[in-house]
Amino acid sequence: MTAAGSDDAGLLAPGWAGSPAAAATSDTAYLRALLDAEAALTRAQAALGLVPAPAAAAVTEAAREDGFDVRSLAERARAGGNPVIPLVADLTAAVGEEYGPYVHRGATSQDILDTAAMLVAARTLELVLADLARTERALARLAAGHRDTALPGRTLTQHAVPTTFGLKAAGWRSLVLDARDRVTAVREALPAQLGGAAGTLAAFAAYGADDPLALPAAYARELGLAAPPLPWHTLRTPVADLAGCLAFTAGALGKLAVDVLALSRTEVREVAEGSGGGSSAMPHKANPVRSTLIAAAARRAPQLAATLYGALAAEDERPAGAWHAEWEPLRELLRLTGGAARDAAELAEGLRVRPEAMRENLGLTHGLIVSERLSAELAPVLGRARAKALLTEAARRAHAEGRALGDLLAEEPGLEGVDLGGLTDPARYTGAAPALTDRALERR
Amino acid sequence: MTAAGSDDAGLLAPGWAGSPAAAATSDTAYLRALLDAEAALTRAQAALGLVPAPAAAAVTEAAREDGFDVRSLAERARAGGNPVIPLVADLTAAVGEEYGPYVHRGATSQDILDTAAMLVAARTLELVLADLARTERALARLAAGHRDTALPGRTLTQHAVPTTFGLKAAGWRSLVLDARDRVTAVREALPAQLGGAAGTLAAFAAYGADDPLALPAAYARELGLAAPPLPWHTLRTPVADLAGCLAFTAGALGKLAVDVLALSRTEVREVAEGSGGGSSAMPHKANPVRSTLIAAAARRAPQLAATLYGALAAEDERPAGAWHAEWEPLRELLRLTGGAARDAAELAEGLRVRPEAMRENLGLTHGLIVSERLSAELAPVLGRARAKALLTEAARRAHAEGRALGDLLAEEPGLEGVDLGGLTDPARYTGAAPALTDRALERR
Amino acid sequence: MTAAGSDDAGLLAPGWAGSPAAAATSDTAYLRALLDAEAALTRAQAALGLVPAPAAAAVTEAAREDGFDVRSLAERARAGGNPVIPLVADLTAAVGEEYGPYVHRGATSQDILDTAAMLVAARTLELVLADLARTERALARLAAGHRDTALPGRTLTQHAVPTTFGLKAAGWRSLVLDARDRVTAVREALPAQLGGAAGTLAAFAAYGADDPLALPAAYARELGLAAPPLPWHTLRTPVADLAGCLAFTAGALGKLAVDVLALSRTEVREVAEGSGGGSSAMPHKANPVRSTLIAAAARRAPQLAATLYGALAAEDERPAGAWHAEWEPLRELLRLTGGAARDAAELAEGLRVRPEAMRENLGLTHGLIVSERLSAELAPVLGRARAKALLTEAARRAHAEGRALGDLLAEEPGLEGVDLGGLTDPARYTGAAPALTDRALERR
Amino acid sequence: MTAAGSDDAGLLAPGWAGSPAAAATSDTAYLRALLDAEAALTRAQAALGLVPAPAAAAVTEAAREDGFDVRSLAERARAGGNPVIPLVADLTAAVGEEYGPYVHRGATSQDILDTAAMLVAARTLELVLADLARTERALARLAAGHRDTALPGRTLTQHAVPTTFGLKAAGWRSLVLDARDRVTAVREALPAQLGGAAGTLAAFAAYGADDPLALPAAYARELGLAAPPLPWHTLRTPVADLAGCLAFTAGALGKLAVDVLALSRTEVREVAEGSGGGSSAMPHKANPVRSTLIAAAARRAPQLAATLYGALAAEDERPAGAWHAEWEPLRELLRLTGGAARDAAELAEGLRVRPEAMRENLGLTHGLIVSERLSAELAPVLGRARAKALLTEAARRAHAEGRALGDLLAEEPGLEGVDLGGLTDPARYTGAAPALTDRALERR
Repeated sequence: MTAAGSDDAGLLAPGWAGSPAAAATSDTAYLRALLDAEAALTRAQAALGLVPAPAAAAVTEAAREDGFDVRSLAERARAGGNPVIPLVADLTAAVGEEYGPYVHRGATSQDILDTAAMLVAARTLELVLADLARTERALARLAAGHRDTALPGRTLTQHAVPTTFGLKAAGWRSLVLDARDRVTAVREALPAQLGGAAGTLAAFAAYGADDPLALPAAYARELGLAAPPLPWHTLRTPVADLAGCLAFTAGALGKLAVDVLALSRTEVREVAEGSGGGSSAMPHKANPVRSTLIAAAARRAPQLAATLYGALAAEDERPAGAWHAEWEPLRELLRLTGGAARDAAELAEGLRVRPEAMRENLGLTHGLIVSERLSAELAPVLGRARAKALLTEAARRAHAEGRALGDLLAEEPGLEGVDLGGLTDPARYTGAAPALTDRALERR
Repeated sequence: MTAAGSDDAGLLAPGWAGSPAAAATSDTAYLRALLDAEAALTRAQAALGLVPAPAAAAVTEAAREDGFDVRSLAERARAGGNPVIPLVADLTAAVGEEYGPYVHRGATSQDILDTAAMLVAARTLELVLADLARTERALARLAAGHRDTALPGRTLTQHAVPTTFGLKAAGWRSLVLDARDRVTAVREALPAQLGGAAGTLAAFAAYGADDPLALPAAYARELGLAAPPLPWHTLRTPVADLAGCLAFTAGALGKLAVDVLALSRTEVREVAEGSGGGSSAMPHKANPVRSTLIAAAARRAPQLAATLYGALAAEDERPAGAWHAEWEPLRELLRLTGGAARDAAELAEGLRVRPEAMRENLGLTHGLIVSERLSAELAPVLGRARAKALLTEAARRAHAEGRALGDLLAEEPGLEGVDLGGLTDPARYTGAAPALTDRALERR
Repeated sequence: MTAAGSDDAGLLAPGWAGSPAAAATSDTAYLRALLDAEAALTRAQAALGLVPAPAAAAVTEAAREDGFDVRSLAERARAGGNPVIPLVADLTAAVGEEYGPYVHRGATSQDILDTAAMLVAARTLELVLADLARTERALARLAAGHRDTALPGRTLTQHAVPTTFGLKAAGWRSLVLDARDRVTAVREALPAQLGGAAGTLAAFAAYGADDPLALPAAYARELGLAAPPLPWHTLRTPVADLAGCLAFTAGALGKLAVDVLALSRTEVREVAEGSGGGSSAMPHKANPVRSTLIAAAARRAPQLAATLYGALAAEDERPAGAWHAEWEPLRELLRLTGGAARDAAELAEGLRVRPEAMRENLGLTHGLIVSERLSAELAPVLGRARAKALLTEAARRAHAEGRALGDLLAEEPGLEGVDLGGLTDPARYTGAAPALTDRALERR
Repeated sequence: MTAAGSDDAGLLAPGWAGSPAAAATSDTAYLRALLDAEAALTRAQAALGLVPAPAAAAVTEAAREDGFDVRSLAERARAGGNPVIPLVADLTAAVGEEYGPYVHRGATSQDILDTAAMLVAARTLELVLADLARTERALARLAAGHRDTALPGRTLTQHAVPTTFGLKAAGWRSLVLDARDRVTAVREALPAQLGGAAGTLAAFAAYGADDPLALPAAYARELGLAAPPLPWHTLRTPVADLAGCLAFTAGALGKLAVDVLALSRTEVREVAEGSGGGSSAMPHKANPVRSTLIAAAARRAPQLAATLYGALAAEDERPAGAWHAEWEPLRELLRLTGGAARDAAELAEGLRVRPEAMRENLGLTHGLIVSERLSAELAPVLGRARAKALLTEAARRAHAEGRALGDLLAEEPGLEGVDLGGLTDPARYTGAAPALTDRALERR
């Protein structure tokens, strides 16, 4: 423990502590990205002949060092309100007298900080995509393997009609694929930022650029980011798009989590997390920890995204607050979603499915779970009115007496030719669930 | 005034009252969409031979009527928790004894309510797109017309370096186009909803469908919506996508609004709303009402979207709360954004631009607004160190004495050959702003 | 159905449609409050001798009428951005030529709209408080009646140790009382608003008031609201306090709702809503509708409150957007919470409790639910190490073999003198739950 | 820079990096509070004779050490989903074999983590209160010192009527006092948490406590926190109250910030931050950094509070997600508000006020800023109709011709006896602003 200051290592964040996304979004990672952005800027200017080639080499070399002090930068950032100002001072000093003046030349702090944020986002989204891919594959296996495993479909907490575990898993997977598609599209469009003091690129012209528009493109190429059509200091589409795809991803994984939580209840026990902990003295207490942490992330992500969407309304050429309000929520959203994706992959890969518990639960309502089917199928046999009266009474008795609906109906005259066993078997009333599963699994 | 109950006509909502989006999202419009969905369902079943053709005609006919009582439906919705239950009762009665039983057959309330929400969304997004198109055209005209009109670029409320009004307008337009693209993509993907009680389409099979998967497709065709790959009762991608594109649109228009508000200030007066009101006795008091209402929408939309993103984590086959929490926020987001788009179109079309005020304001800092340029351009002439010392002192004096920086520099030896008039003319330091404007306007 | 415009009657809002809170917050109710505010203003001025007494009578008389057209006002509110402007025109016309000029004299639109909002809030909070009182009483009865009814305590969805239903109900009640206290405190402090154009009361002085500070106090007295220490056009404490107490109340009731939802699950069935619906053919399907709607409200309220908290940062003497963004979220929060309170009262009053299901569920883990107790109580008997080893093995076997933990332990030597039956009876391991319940019920 | 992991020092957070609140809410500070909670628990048990006194001493001694590894704890927290589990293991080992078993005896992780959060909150709120006190004093000085300094009152960005800087400062101060009152009330009620596994205190009884209710009280005394009436594992009033008072405080300071931002604009220049930075070459560019960072905090706090309000709906005896979703947002809200309070104190203490700029700006509308007064005061002189016509025309000309309204009126017949100079002097139309300021300053 150090004596003072902030030194967060994720003590309050089991959802992302120790994850690849945490490392990719740490202060250290941001510092790395800020230095990468500064170095790329000088190289891009050198490529266009605006600064001497050795200057680019010197800045790149100095920016590669690990000697910059995050804590000191953080504290010195107060004065001007952003960390680029002290970083430029430190980097300029590190580059030395001859080439120091080429550091950050023509740029504004926002060029560097926005670009660094996009680099961090790009790197983190790769990690998210990898974990979404793992999750998707595990869910595909679950869907295929349980294509025909019936369990109670539940609406508003009550058994409704049967469904299949395959369809549930296929649905989870389809959300993961939706997330993948949204994240991928946003990832590919993440732009570099370059505009200078007020987004006109004017300083670059003052320093001699004949075609200032060539510079952002060269800069983006150096960084592996998209070239921005316009400086976007106050046109925050990239940040809003990140907010949207990350809130979506956290929510999509949240659906998986809340389902696992519901199915894990001691009374339901249809699934269990593979890694569910619990003390040796309480083997029944296998807490669904991964689901819990994903569910927590899904509760937080929407409001973080709301702050970012709210920052779209950014006045002037650089707003006094809206921009600054983006930095931490964007980082938090990246690592929260990154952590949730890791947890989802482990959850999906380790999920234990208990078809026998599903079967048992299907019987809890004594066959009433298929009453919808009986309504449909007995009407042609008995006439609509009689079928309805008969079913209402039989349902009432099944519920009250705890007897099986099929047995009660078997006592009724007029149903001799009906396969009541088949009609009242919940496992045989899963409708198009298997076909829907097959079709969903065709999506890649 | 009626004696009781809710009867909102938008008294608290000048931002959307009376707008096309308000009409498209009213209770009446939802009722219309619910009835359209019921009718389409019966027609789709008839098309596949699952119900008699006259039943489809009868339901369609009855659903076309205007006699359903919104208030009564709203109040009866309490018992079961959604308005489809009483509506099905009323529609069944309206259809009559023979074909009444075919109303809603095999469906669940959520099939109808979700489908209706998508219909309402589709209709409203068309209106939004039309107003975005108007806005975009007006902004394109402003950008082209003021391609070279210089004004102060402002960062953190302070003059930084000059920019152009053309670039500002081009930036606003680029956000509007981003909104258009996102809304269009979401609009095209809005799916019909059909799954039956627990999303397995089982009842349709029980009623005789050989290929239950054909039914959602036929249903979607009847409605002009996309066919859903899976029932999405708890796979809420369409709602989350609506949340994202609407929050984006409100925020994008919010950027336009906050800029107009800043530029409209009595002290700045660089733009004025065309329709700015104010009493005849206070001609100076032309309130930027359109901007104000758009800005208010931009403050609200992110939190409405957050509620919708939060609803992604929907447990089971129908959640107890998450689904119900979507209905009003989605409607509110649609009409709020629709109203903002209307206001934005009027704002952009009527905006009065005052280049003379811009010019005047460019002079407020006595030339300091171009100090960045002088740093760059004098260094090669005087040497970096001398240039810096000279500028620092001149800037100090310009600020303290209220004298023009150019005049002060003209007194310095060694700058005889320098075009100080040109270098210190803010209107000639707009960098790539005109070129960026041209390029941005190429986007269609 | 009317042909056009918005006409919301709550079709999408089963949570508040038809409720007293809905009537108290409708456009009609706001119109009433606006008129009450205008009339009170003139009366207060008359009381201080600033306007003729007959003017006050005339305005009061005219404001009592029901002839004002909400829809027309809503649409005319667009031009100036708020409904007070057209309302003053209509009211002035209704008052007539002689006293018309005394309508709204010296005031600004915000004086009237803010005051009306406080009147509506005050009236709605009374309704909320009444339903909280009903809820609290019903929960007190449940807590007292089930003081000793044991059920499984559940953490992270898993059985942990037993608790009592009395303690659960007492906990719900304590939250309701917390809500009551917060709502009551806010209710009593709701202030009238009066400041004139920029909050200086200057116009009242111009119209002859010797002591302009006396006017807000007189005005507040007329309205039954608190006298404002300062005009609060941009000091939004009252609105933020409403946001806080309403979000708290919705969330507090949400806790009750999510617990009832969990305990209502088909597999758990420990409680059921008294009014749970479901068709006659599906008696097992008693949907917890009240809980569902409360849970939906609890999901929405925090984000509505966030918008209101966000409006605290209101620039100048009247902000361009922050104020306008308050109106609908405040109304929505009032009626959403009002509806939830109504539902909570019905839920609490009708809740059916099933001790036999609780008892059955306590047995699901074969006694492992009391393993914590055995760890504590066997250590002194067997020594800590042996006790732990023994319990770990017995727990493993109980879980794996489905045998009762008590029976397995009874086979062990050295435990002959131990009352294993008592120690492993979950109903006898409820700790201080009954005592805590008693103490909680002492709070009034 | 370390090679991996998260190591946040606030690089993205100039709003709180290096602040006392940052230190009080760091991982290190939470670890300290967790250890304090564990030690207090053993001491409280010893005080009641439940554990040997030397055990309490041993645990207290071990908990005082600084050797616990935050990063390791953070990473090991993943397995069980919270950091208390590995911390108990480490602390138990540190205490040693004899007294180790008394560590955490009878408690659950949530007892310790919630208690630690309350300790951290209590410590941070003290810092917030100290900075609010500094801010309040500085604002009181500004209000008193500028009691009669007139400046334009602005509504919807436009000059309306004059107000005084004293009243503005008194308004800011009143919000700070409102924040102080709310924070103080919440601070005093922060409770310790103690309930055991499911909130029944059962384990403490199993370990021999005769009166388990005495233990939470003793525990709270050890910690200087309030005694909880009930275990509040899922009765989250304390967290919701923190959310409310912190969102309020951030918003209240946000009002100060957005006003300073508006008044700092280059065109308005009525105030300037004392510490406004800017390069030596750009003395005009004194960025309002403190205001910017406060404004950014005010944009973020409401959504963080929303997440906490949303966590009220926490199912069961410990929820699977709602609790975990609280930890980071609560910490973030504490340090964000703490940082904003520090910035507000510096802002208020250093604010430079420019009465000459205010005077100049009052003249920008050529006297139209007092047209309200003229309407009121000329009507008795000229008759209402003639006064209105005259003013309308004079206002039109003043606006169009840029001439002073007073001069134009002076040319009119019938106004010879009127003190037009006085009536049109904006500085003499500040209404009750000075009196309101005096009254507001009486509040302590």
